[in-house]
Amino acid sequence: MMTELTMEKLVALAKNRGFVYPGSEIYGGLANTWDYGPLGAELLNNVKKAWWKKFVQESKYNVGLDAAILMNPQTWVASGHVGGFSDPLVDCKSCKSRFRADKLIEEHMEKTGQPETIVDGWSNEKLEAYIEDNDVRCPECGKHDFTGIRQFNLMFQTYQGVTEDSKAAIYLRPETAQGIFVNFKNVQRTSRKKLPFGIAQIGKAFRNEITPGNFIFRTREFEQMEVEFFCRPGEDLQWHDYWKKYCGNFLRSLGMKEENMRFRDHEKEELSHYSNATTDIEYLFPFGWGELWGIADRTDFDLKQHQEHSKQDMSYVDSETGEKFIPYCIEPSLGVGRVTLAFMCDAYTEEEIEKEDGKKDSRVVMKFHPALAPFKAAVLPLAKKLAPVAEPIHEELSKYFMVDYDVTGSIGKRYRREDEIGTPFCICVDFETENDGCVTIRDRDTMEQVRIPVEEVKDYIAERLVF
Amino acid sequence: MMTELTMEKLVALAKNRGFVYPGSEIYGGLANTWDYGPLGAELLNNVKKAWWKKFVQESKYNVGLDAAILMNPQTWVASGHVGGFSDPLVDCKSCKSRFRADKLIEEHMEKTGQPETIVDGWSNEKLEAYIEDNDVRCPECGKHDFTGIRQFNLMFQTYQGVTEDSKAAIYLRPETAQGIFVNFKNVQRTSRKKLPFGIAQIGKAFRNEITPGNFIFRTREFEQMEVEFFCRPGEDLQWHDYWKKYCGNFLRSLGMKEENMRFRDHEKEELSHYSNATTDIEYLFPFGWGELWGIADRTDFDLKQHQEHSKQDMSYVDSETGEKFIPYCIEPSLGVGRVTLAFMCDAYTEEEIEKEDGKKDSRVVMKFHPALAPFKAAVLPLAKKLAPVAEPIHEELSKYFMVDYDVTGSIGKRYRREDEIGTPFCICVDFETENDGCVTIRDRDTMEQVRIPVEEVKDYIAERLVF
Repeated sequence: MMTELTMEKLVALAKNRGFVYPGSEIYGGLANTWDYGPLGAELLNNVKKAWWKKFVQESKYNVGLDAAILMNPQTWVASGHVGGFSDPLVDCKSCKSRFRADKLIEEHMEKTGQPETIVDGWSNEKLEAYIEDNDVRCPECGKHDFTGIRQFNLMFQTYQGVTEDSKAAIYLRPETAQGIFVNFKNVQRTSRKKLPFGIAQIGKAFRNEITPGNFIFRTREFEQMEVEFFCRPGEDLQWHDYWKKYCGNFLRSLGMKEENMRFRDHEKEELSHYSNATTDIEYLFPFGWGELWGIADRTDFDLKQHQEHSKQDMSYVDSETGEKFIPYCIEPSLGVGRVTLAFMCDAYTEEEIEKEDGKKDSRVVMKFHPALAPFKAAVLPLAKKLAPVAEPIHEELSKYFMVDYDVTGSIGKRYRREDEIGTPFCICVDFETENDGCVTIRDRDTMEQVRIPVEEVKDYIAERLVF
Repeated sequence: MMTELTMEKLVALAKNRGFVYPGSEIYGGLANTWDYGPLGAELLNNVKKAWWKKFVQESKYNVGLDAAILMNPQTWVASGHVGGFSDPLVDCKSCKSRFRADKLIEEHMEKTGQPETIVDGWSNEKLEAYIEDNDVRCPECGKHDFTGIRQFNLMFQTYQGVTEDSKAAIYLRPETAQGIFVNFKNVQRTSRKKLPFGIAQIGKAFRNEITPGNFIFRTREFEQMEVEFFCRPGEDLQWHDYWKKYCGNFLRSLGMKEENMRFRDHEKEELSHYSNATTDIEYLFPFGWGELWGIADRTDFDLKQHQEHSKQDMSYVDSETGEKFIPYCIEPSLGVGRVTLAFMCDAYTEEEIEKEDGKKDSRVVMKFHPALAPFKAAVLPLAKKLAPVAEPIHEELSKYFMVDYDVTGSIGKRYRREDEIGTPFCICVDFETENDGCVTIRDRDTMEQVRIPVEEVKDYIAERLVF
């Protein structure tokens, strides 16, 4: 019996178990903001740590960076965000509702059974013509009476400083990538890296989207994990391929199911004018396939833009040949919230199991890879009076891992609770423990139990966290 | 020979070695923003990990949280930030310069040799009267001709949404604490914690300060590590004392020098109206004593404010006695940038050493606790042709730690470079390694060397990271 996962089920579990709460909930929330509870904060940290391990610590090519969210606004002129980072909006003249023109068209296509077409990237003229020619109607009032398209910039703007001359409009960064590009020379100089090498960063970014949604899939405030990988021009396609595989293997190494992943290479007409190749890794969410990871070959576009706008030399000099050039760049860019949601969906399992008395029962298990699980283990004394034996075990293990401790309710009930939050190992302390120095470890997925000495528990867990 | 550390030296080392660069540097920077380079990003991560380990993982009282930066603006009405979170500013009518009145007075007191007084918290009337009575002059033009004081709110404001009715002014959170308070009930319910318990969080906050400065000590964008610890009314002072000690021990466990730390209990008149006690842990920076950690007893002020404004019940029910009340709260609040700066200052050492030929030499060493050091070790092959022996060692160790690899320059030069970035262990691979399976490990601080089998290196390092 495998029941289908719905977003409603996942959101409910997330809220009830302390993974994710609606943001500012006591004040009725704020658009699509979310707060990560005790388990969600651990899960998120584990996802970020796993990424940093594979993309910085274990990679001989990459180094880390942590740039500020607030940047000199010239950055966003150079990157094209001030001029071109906008959504095409139309208003319904009749009921005053506002829509993204591309989404309006996509919905129309779906409703009328037209083949899936990528509207993203269409010009205003093309969008307007489609709406006209196809008699697209307002989803709110059913009228066909739209204004022309206006571009609405997606950057959040604010003001910094208080003296009249210094008070300046600045933006919350809409992506972390530019913090890397502006530091290209600083990082190259101080890390003494030679091509090819990458700069990796995790950080928040903000986009004033008109249609955030699907839980933590699309939020105005979001976190990115990005690498900008610099290489010689001409070697970019081979490195694009390298990172495609590397990213896929990262997801697989953390147990993501193959059938829920697909690689989608962008068609020529879909590519940005500066891109040589782009591949999306998509995940099959309950609401359909959604983009998880974008792996783009951005050529020398960004560094050239910054060279032009800053008048600083952004080129690289090959110390052996003396050659001087602007490197090409591959960007694997992943959303923390998205991939966390994907891991949650992937882990969610409803199972029918057999109880000790032979009767059927069912359970919900979050089958997270142990490296991602919020708690690595739970110490469960069989009875409350075993606390003097169980507490020191919990305290010792907590030096190394996040370990839960639970004395409330029957042992079966406690197992179910740990299953539902994805704890891979339950350590049962019983009346024999004090005599034989052993505990019983129950495996979350197989439900099999082994009895091992207390002093071997740490290594038992540590070995199973490897990925 | 111990030379005194100056901020100039530290900022130069930070920039040259890749700890901290000026933010958006290619565009001339942006006020006092800073970007953490490859080593700074690791150091920062290690500081945060160490805090999370002690304040969440190992604490039997606390659980974690990760709330959004963007919150419902009613939060800031309830917290008092919309009404009262402002700086008192005065303009010089003559030269149009703008100043913080309290800072103007403090500078005047210092210049005229008056005893150190805490001006923070004075009323506008008191500030204006002092400026008048003491003939305080404009530091820019020397005139005594100021406007009255105006309050300038320190929150960054921005707008969210695009439709006319939904476009709303929101703020970048000026502190992470309120994200915890609004989630008090959600966390308590889902974690099933009983009093006393705490909620811990790491995250960015933003304040539009008129005078950011002192490198990463005071920046408009900054990161906080905060606990809101809830307890029974009447037990608050004893828990305030508990956390004071716990915080001090945290700093000591990471090697912070006792002589550079001091605890300052706030005087009665300095306390906020709702606070029962507040203690600052201060650090002796090159520019003087500066606040590192504020440990405040905030009573039931915050939860009461939110209960009043949200009309939600924020009380706690004791499951044994049935008693219902709003808990008191102790808040240990630490700045990530500040404590990282303190650890950098504390680590900075200039030493005279003896070279192998008996001549005197000097070195700069960053004596970070191994748990904080950006690289835990560096693999240094004695000659380039030893790469086939050295690279697999580097690769294997990189599964567990951040490990540097360096083949460039003499071994002495490479040791100096690792000293300057604080790498505690240099692993020298020599011509014997292939035969005897051993490497020489050189200790950063004592410069002593031991030869051990390659397969023991991992444990050798791991044991020394414990704190």
